[in-house]
This record gives sequence, C-alpha cells and structure tokens, in this order.
Amino acid sequence: MTYESLQSLHPIRINERRISERIRCLAKFGMNREGGIDRSLGSKADIQAREWLKNLWKTELQAAVAVDPAANLWAERKGKEKIKPIVLGSHHDAVANGGKYDGAVGVLLATEVVQSLKEANYKLRHPIKVVSFSAEEPNPYNISTLGSRLITGVLDSKQVGEATHVYTHEKLSETLKRLGGDVGNVANHLLTSDDVGAFLECHIEQGRHLTDHGLSLAVVSSITGIYREEITIDGEANHAGTTMMENRHDALLAGAELSLAVEQAVIGQGRSDVVGTVGHFEIFPNSANIIPGQAHLILEMRTSNDQVFKELRAQLADTCTEIENKRQIIIKRKTILDQKAVPMDPLVRTALQQSIKASGDFYLDLPSMAGHDSVHMVPIAKTGMLFVPSIEGKSHCPEEETRIEDIVKAGNVLIRTVIALDKELD
Amino acid sequence: MTYESLQSLHPIRINERRISERIRCLAKFGMNREGGIDRSLGSKADIQAREWLKNLWKTELQAAVAVDPAANLWAERKGKEKIKPIVLGSHHDAVANGGKYDGAVGVLLATEVVQSLKEANYKLRHPIKVVSFSAEEPNPYNISTLGSRLITGVLDSKQVGEATHVYTHEKLSETLKRLGGDVGNVANHLLTSDDVGAFLECHIEQGRHLTDHGLSLAVVSSITGIYREEITIDGEANHAGTTMMENRHDALLAGAELSLAVEQAVIGQGRSDVVGTVGHFEIFPNSANIIPGQAHLILEMRTSNDQVFKELRAQLADTCTEIENKRQIIIKRKTILDQKAVPMDPLVRTALQQSIKASGDFYLDLPSMAGHDSVHMVPIAKTGMLFVPSIEGKSHCPEEETRIEDIVKAGNVLIRTVIALDKELD
Repeated sequence: MTYESLQSLHPIRINERRISERIRCLAKFGMNREGGIDRSLGSKADIQAREWLKNLWKTELQAAVAVDPAANLWAERKGKEKIKPIVLGSHHDAVANGGKYDGAVGVLLATEVVQSLKEANYKLRHPIKVVSFSAEEPNPYNISTLGSRLITGVLDSKQVGEATHVYTHEKLSETLKRLGGDVGNVANHLLTSDDVGAFLECHIEQGRHLTDHGLSLAVVSSITGIYREEITIDGEANHAGTTMMENRHDALLAGAELSLAVEQAVIGQGRSDVVGTVGHFEIFPNSANIIPGQAHLILEMRTSNDQVFKELRAQLADTCTEIENKRQIIIKRKTILDQKAVPMDPLVRTALQQSIKASGDFYLDLPSMAGHDSVHMVPIAKTGMLFVPSIEGKSHCPEEETRIEDIVKAGNVLIRTVIALDKELD
Repeated sequence: MTYESLQSLHPIRINERRISERIRCLAKFGMNREGGIDRSLGSKADIQAREWLKNLWKTELQAAVAVDPAANLWAERKGKEKIKPIVLGSHHDAVANGGKYDGAVGVLLATEVVQSLKEANYKLRHPIKVVSFSAEEPNPYNISTLGSRLITGVLDSKQVGEATHVYTHEKLSETLKRLGGDVGNVANHLLTSDDVGAFLECHIEQGRHLTDHGLSLAVVSSITGIYREEITIDGEANHAGTTMMENRHDALLAGAELSLAVEQAVIGQGRSDVVGTVGHFEIFPNSANIIPGQAHLILEMRTSNDQVFKELRAQLADTCTEIENKRQIIIKRKTILDQKAVPMDPLVRTALQQSIKASGDFYLDLPSMAGHDSVHMVPIAKTGMLFVPSIEGKSHCPEEETRIEDIVKAGNVLIRTVIALDKELD
C-alpha cells in the first residue's frame, strides 16, 4: 500500500447525521437521571440495546444476524470470496453511571462502515462482520471482557457459568441463556484463527493524549501490560494513647510510604506510558484510638515496556525492604495479575496509519493504557485499534464525550482501512 | 505531711495471697479460650462479676452495698465523722479479648485497702467507699466511661438511654435496668462535690514508661488531652490506566502524605508525652483499577501540654494547605473531640508521692496517655491516680500482665495515702 494509492481510492464516506442519531438512540437504553448510562449484562437496558442492534443490522445492513454461545452479537454480509472475514466491532455494555461513547462508538461505526460500503455498492472480497461483545466492562459478575475471553477460550466456561450477580444472585449461565447464549456450548463454538482474518476496533481513548495534542485520531501501538499485587502489611495494633511513637509498628504509615514510593518510582521513569496506582487500601482494626495493626493494599502498574516493568518491580522490592527494616513490620506480596503487553498487528497498524495520512490528517501512535476486547482477539486475528479523543480525558462518567467530527473522521478511516485490508489479506 | 511522719505510720499491709487470688477469680468471668477477657456491659460475664463483687463487699468488708442509677457498684464503710467520703475504685468491664488487670486491679486493690484497714481495726475519720464504674472501656454501645460520665452529669441521660447494643440492639436503658440501674432516675442522684471528698484510682499504665525504667509505681500528674479530627479529602476518581500521573488528584496519596506528616510533626516535638495517630482510614471507591477519589481519616493527637497542641495544630494546618496546593485536592477538617488535659489534685499527688517515699521506693511522675474514669471525678473531688507497670507495655490483650509484687506495693501505698488524706482532709 502507498499513500498515493490510498489517496485515489473510493471516496466512500460515512453518514454523519445517521451515526450521530444512532449514538443518541443507543444511549437511551439505560440512561439515568444524571444522564449516565446503566447498561450492565442482562439488565433491561442490555436486552433493549441487543434487540435494537439486531434489528438495525437486519433491516439496515440486510445482514445475517447471530448470537454466539457467549451471547456476543454478530452481523455478517458475504464477500465475493469464501475467505476469512474482516471483523469490526466493540461492546455495547456500560459501567454503572457510564458514558454514551465507550464501546458504543466502536459498534455503531462498524455498523456504519458496513452500511456505507453497501450503499456505495462496494463489493469486498472478504466477508465482513460486525460484533458487539458481551460484558466488556467491570460488571456485577466481576468478570470483565467476558464475551471476548469466553468465545476465544481464555476463560473456563464451566467456572464462568457458576459466577453469580452480586445483587440478584442470578447465575451467569442463566443470564447468558436469557440473552441467547449457552455457556455449555462454548467449547464447541470457540472462535479461532480460522474464523477471523482481521479485527478492527475503534474506541474512545479515555485519556488526555489526543485532547492535549488537539488531534482527532490515534493508532494504537500496543495494549498495556497490567501487573497487580495484593500486599498485606503486618504491623502491631496497640493503644493509640499509651504507645509512644518509637514503640509503634504502624501498618497504615508503612502502607502510606509504600503508596507514595510507587508514585515516585513511576514519575521517576519520566514517561507518559507508565502509570502506577494503589486503588485499594484498607486498614485494621480501623478504629480512631488504635494504632493500625494491618493494612491491605492492591497495587497496579501499567506499561507496555518490559524494561520499565522490570525496573519498577526491582525498586518496589527495595522499597519494601527499607520500610520493613525502618518500621519493623512485615510486608507480604502476592502477584494477582501479570498480563503482558499485547502489540497490535503491524500490517493493520500500517493500514490505519496510511488511511489517516491519505485523508490528509495527523495521528498519534499510542499504547492503550486500558484493556479492551482487542487484547483477546490478538491471538487469533490480525488486530488493530483506532482511538478517538475523550474530551478532557473524561470516561466512565456521564460527562464522557467525543466530538461528532472526530467520530466521522474515524469512520472514514475505517472504510479506507477495510478496503486496503480487503486487497492485502488472503 | 512529711516523709518522717509517714515513715513512722501504721505498718498496715495488704494481703498478697488474697489480692492475687481475687485477680484470678474475677478473671474467670468472661475468660475466652485464648485467655482473653470478654466482659462488656450487660454480658453474662459482667453480671457474674457484679454479683461476685457485691457479695465480696458484703461478706468480707461488711460494707453497705449499693447500685446507683448508672449501675455503678458502691460499697461503703462508715467513718468516725459524718464528712465527705474518701472513694477508691476503678472499673470491672473489659474490652473484647482484653486483659485481666485493666480496671480489675483498681477495684480489687480498693477492696483490699478497705479490708486491710478493717482487719487492722484502723478507724478512719472519713467514710470510705469502693466504686466499680460501669462500662469504662470502648463497648458495643459506643459510649466509653459510661458510668462515671453518666453519674457526674457529663452525659445526657435520656440520649444515653436510647443508645443500642451494636449486635443485640438492646437499648442501653434496658441494659442498665437489668443491672440494677435506672437511667430515668440519674438526674435525681447525680454525684456532686458534696458526695466525694477524694478519689483514688490505681490502674495499669498500659504503656512502657515504668517497664522501661524498671520501676514499680508512677504518680499520675495529669490525664492527657485528646484531640480528634475527622478529615475528608476530595480528590478525583478516574481510570487507573488512562489517567497520566500528572493529571491525577489521588485522595489516597494525599491522605498518605498527611498521615506521615502527622507522625513527623509529633516526633519532631521530641517528647515522650505526645502521640499522634491516624487510626481510621478509608478510601473510595476502593477499587484496584480506579484512582481513589475520596479518603476519610480520623486523626487523633494526645498531650497534656497546651503549647504542644497549639504547635501541632498549626503545623497540621500548614501541611494541609501544602498538600491541597500540590495535589489540587480539597481537605475538609472537622474537630470531633477536644478534651482538655486534666491535672490531678496537688494534695492527693503529694500524698501518693510521699507515701511511696515513705516505703523507701521510687516512682515516676507521668501524665496518663489513656483516658480514665478519674477524668470525670476531677470536677467533683480531689482526684489522684497511681500507675502500676504493664509488662512490655501490653494492654487490651490476653498478654496484659502486672507483677504481683508491684500490685502489692501499690496497695500498701494506697493504705498510707488513705491514712494521710484521712488526717489532712475535712
């Protein structure tokens, strides 16, 4: 592919009014009084969104609509050849009180791409599919990226079926059944590299890189590695009045030093693609007049750079030893997640980059600092992601927003990219 | 009073075997499998201990036994004159899984003093009373020093009656009724300065001063001031992956800096009679992948020195401003307790000090870093406290221990002090 060949290609464009209207429509399902979206797996809003999407695909795309055993939704239009399809999509669920764009933009742009190609009467060699994955977000079953992980065989389907909704206690196997899935049948319908040629996901950035650079598009280079540790600090609970300062073994203060040291170590890397967070922090007995005897932390670090991870983990080990010696407390560490960074496919990345250049626009190359369904498509398909800006970086909240101009640009880039991949791929 | 006059005084001694045996007996009520004592207000163990004490006072002291409207237990032996009584005592309740000595030593030594004087046929001018206060410790009704505060009019008796047990939900008015109290009748029986001439409480130190100095006795100079603030830190909850370090407003890290600054400020005073603790610390939403948006702390500082308090509070204000500016978060502070330090009565202190000197022993002058029933006796009576050592400073735990030799020394000092005060006081 060359810049010139793309530049001269089919001037197929998506329909701005239509995509704008569809984002508004999908947002109705589960919108609460504050304007946030409540649309978790199996909720009334989820069911409404699913019916609306399936109906849209049948009537507007004239596509074959299917629900797989993980209750992921699929639409398919045949290609000229019987080869592995190009798939576009994202998810339609939302975190509690979430925004209108996370997931929705990816699903609706995928729909728009297929419809625009159909309307332009452009015949692809490849079949083209749209997917909307089940339960990508943190949800009441405590299993995120459920649909993509279940259908690609990452999760144990039997174990998943036994999970229950934290409030209603409905078993996940029952929920999926209500949605047209069948957890007992997942093993017979796993998605493999035979089923998908390429996967493209457009998503909101959820960070500030694009907004800070005043740009509309980013091509994702990789999806961040995520490392989590459960840390227990054993100090000594004691009387907060009668225990002199020098005789204390305060677990809260040890945890405070550790949390601040993590922040310093991460900032010390001087990079924008590494973050570290202590998001969970509890102390015991948590009483005003008792010196904290134990602290429980969950520490998370994210980066796509293995060397950075290595350095941070070495610094963390040193810090823990220092604090243990200084405060005569014991720090117990347990790795609970060590998800490696996942690089995006070079061919798809290039296709995205050149499609953007062909439209005369600029882009950032960015690692994704959030996880996505794409992570789980990488092992089976040539996978790429396109980011659109989140205004002020706001996400997972009612204020989440992406300008329609940026969404339209992304849609047109996706059309060009699909056409380019259709030529390139077998 | 002079050293010489005391030295030559009545060689009345307490009975070591008897006090030792009684500590063992009282500890049976509520002893759990770990050897800790569970004896909270209204529990079966509390009722057993009360019956045992009242019976002991009736049979061994031949005293008049009474239960006041706050369910405090009283024993009285008449004096030669009709003047305000000298009162000795402490409390017989225990924290959950507490020790055998906290409170018990004071009540049983008071009993022992009266019995030893009776056996020596020593006639005091003053009536002498023993008191065991209700619910001195933190308890399931969340009202500590209940008995002493209620009967001296510090607490609103109506409000107190409405408090409920955190587990059984029994109203405190009902609990007190079961124990022979009557919350509705407190106002008619308030303890005033007409009712008590002097109050003496022997208690375990609960700290390490005596044990570190290898001494047996301390005369309490004052009971510490206690200052508590509820602190709310408002930061911004955000995605722990996509939010770059420089765009964060992490409430946990602000709280960590604040907690460590309090420790530094207190240590910076270079005194053993000032402590500071953040004992309560919670963050929200407390989720591994979300930057903490809010933190809730309770900060406590204790000292008997007003100037130190003033300096610490000024430092705290500066620290809060620094952290607010640095992290662009908001710190809201609310004083929830501002209990001034309470000095012990000079005459009683001197009597205790000279009684110790008269026995040829040494002592420390110490502020009490824990609160006690004595705090609430100060406004109505000449009040003094004597400390015995807690081995290794351990308290409120099954390992809490005081050597019997030290308890006996304290008992003999109390006898001398009572005799001295009996001569001095009207």
